[in-house]
Amino acid sequence: MSLLVTGSIGIDTVESPFGRVVDTLGGSSIYFAYAASFFSPVRLVGVVGEDCPADFLAPLHANERIDMGGLEIRRGSKTFRWHGRYHQDVNIRDTVGVELNVLAERGPTIPESFRDSRYVFLANTHPALQIELLGQLRRPALVVADTMDLWIQTERETLMKLIDRLDGLVLNDGEAKMLTGESNVVAAGLELGTRVRNFIVIKKGEHGALLFTGRNVFALPSYPTFCVVDPTGAGDSFAGAMMGYLASQDNTDAATLRRAMAYGTVTASIGIEGFSLQKFFTASRDAIDRRMGEFEEMITLTR
Amino acid sequence: MSLLVTGSIGIDTVESPFGRVVDTLGGSSIYFAYAASFFSPVRLVGVVGEDCPADFLAPLHANERIDMGGLEIRRGSKTFRWHGRYHQDVNIRDTVGVELNVLAERGPTIPESFRDSRYVFLANTHPALQIELLGQLRRPALVVADTMDLWIQTERETLMKLIDRLDGLVLNDGEAKMLTGESNVVAAGLELGTRVRNFIVIKKGEHGALLFTGRNVFALPSYPTFCVVDPTGAGDSFAGAMMGYLASQDNTDAATLRRAMAYGTVTASIGIEGFSLQKFFTASRDAIDRRMGEFEEMITLTR
Repeated sequence: MSLLVTGSIGIDTVESPFGRVVDTLGGSSIYFAYAASFFSPVRLVGVVGEDCPADFLAPLHANERIDMGGLEIRRGSKTFRWHGRYHQDVNIRDTVGVELNVLAERGPTIPESFRDSRYVFLANTHPALQIELLGQLRRPALVVADTMDLWIQTERETLMKLIDRLDGLVLNDGEAKMLTGESNVVAAGLELGTRVRNFIVIKKGEHGALLFTGRNVFALPSYPTFCVVDPTGAGDSFAGAMMGYLASQDNTDAATLRRAMAYGTVTASIGIEGFSLQKFFTASRDAIDRRMGEFEEMITLTR
Repeated sequence: MSLLVTGSIGIDTVESPFGRVVDTLGGSSIYFAYAASFFSPVRLVGVVGEDCPADFLAPLHANERIDMGGLEIRRGSKTFRWHGRYHQDVNIRDTVGVELNVLAERGPTIPESFRDSRYVFLANTHPALQIELLGQLRRPALVVADTMDLWIQTERETLMKLIDRLDGLVLNDGEAKMLTGESNVVAAGLELGTRVRNFIVIKKGEHGALLFTGRNVFALPSYPTFCVVDPTGAGDSFAGAMMGYLASQDNTDAATLRRAMAYGTVTASIGIEGFSLQKFFTASRDAIDRRMGEFEEMITLTR
């Protein structure tokens, strides 16, 4: 089933206890699309500036499961840049620098040929733009969005309008608490669960994720990894693999959602073992399935 | 199979967003013993001062599964007191006051009739005292201990001597990182797992727990509760139910350990819904089993 992602494309610089990479591939739509491609063909919509090196997106163009037909190279604009530094405890990160550049201009346009997409992920951006993008779609089956603390604080009303039109919302625990005013993440998830048509996923980073479908709760630990080189994009990779699996099954019932979250967890756990998307370039659906088998064994109560 | 706990008995004062209780029942051995009693008879060893009100321990004396034969009421001493205050986010707590009193004196003695205990839990205290208590036992089948940051910082060498004699160690994530110098909790668990005979349990509070048996890892989320009134003693209740279940099965293989951790999680989740031990006084093994069924449903991948 057709899967579409709209989101950022970034030139990232990342420092972690394991090293430093400069001007490397990043951005939410990039992590999402590559992770999704292990499960399903995926259509990418995003904008770069004319400063973007010609071969910068080569790994995505080379991936035959990623349709780059929604890539806009905007004249006179500059590509989004992000520079982050992870601490010895890689769960702590400082933002060294951000240049919004093209992200601060008008948003992308979904090409005509993509507007029939059935599964849609609106990665984090201004909620007014997310609503506008949603309006460009013809008849999506499942629309899921991500957001961030900035929009919760500055654009709450617009964000709530978006949420009321969504099938699913993916956000992290701090954002869920901020959005609802609840100090308990389960209470926050249950409250948000009443506003969307299908599900809420609350990501807790190294502590796993929670799924709320109405009053029903699913709790999933993270994959217990001891080699975290670069956590950048882990949330987008999680969402990408999750949505890719849902699209591949063309099913969003509770059991499929649970399995999709587990695939999201496992795929993201591979990505963070290297800088940028490096680990994805050598990964395969087989490798993901092997780790999925290990993960199931690690979280199963009786055996 | 016989189960013994050594640990503190405290007169607690607790403040949380849900209210305040003054001079209420607390202490590691108390939470442990009551939680364990849902699964197995349990022998309690601990000391109070002569200031301890006559009816203070009445709920434990009234519980026919708890053998209070190891209770010492020490002349001229005062009972341990603790005063804590939980924030709106109950995962954050301030210690308002601590009076060690009898806990700063010589430790308890295990009565002759308890020295044949097969399952033993040495709740957190000075590691030299834990070693001394261990020496009083005849031939235990499974000795598990808890510890705290204070001993890791000030008594590391003695603590490591204790750990090398243990079958199992239960500690929280911050302590595991501090003890090993690892910033990654999985790496810390794998490293500690090489030092004990059977298992390491790393408790992560609202984020669940990890079990390490050699290189084998089990990841368990917490029970997704939205009503946390008083988290005091949650870790001790977890350990009590876990050890109580293991003693009831007289089995410590990997599958039984996993189930024991789930029972620990579920039992602790009931305890924290009220102040002190109040929720335990009206709970039952049936109620725990019902919640265990719900919990299994909440963490199962395929259904």
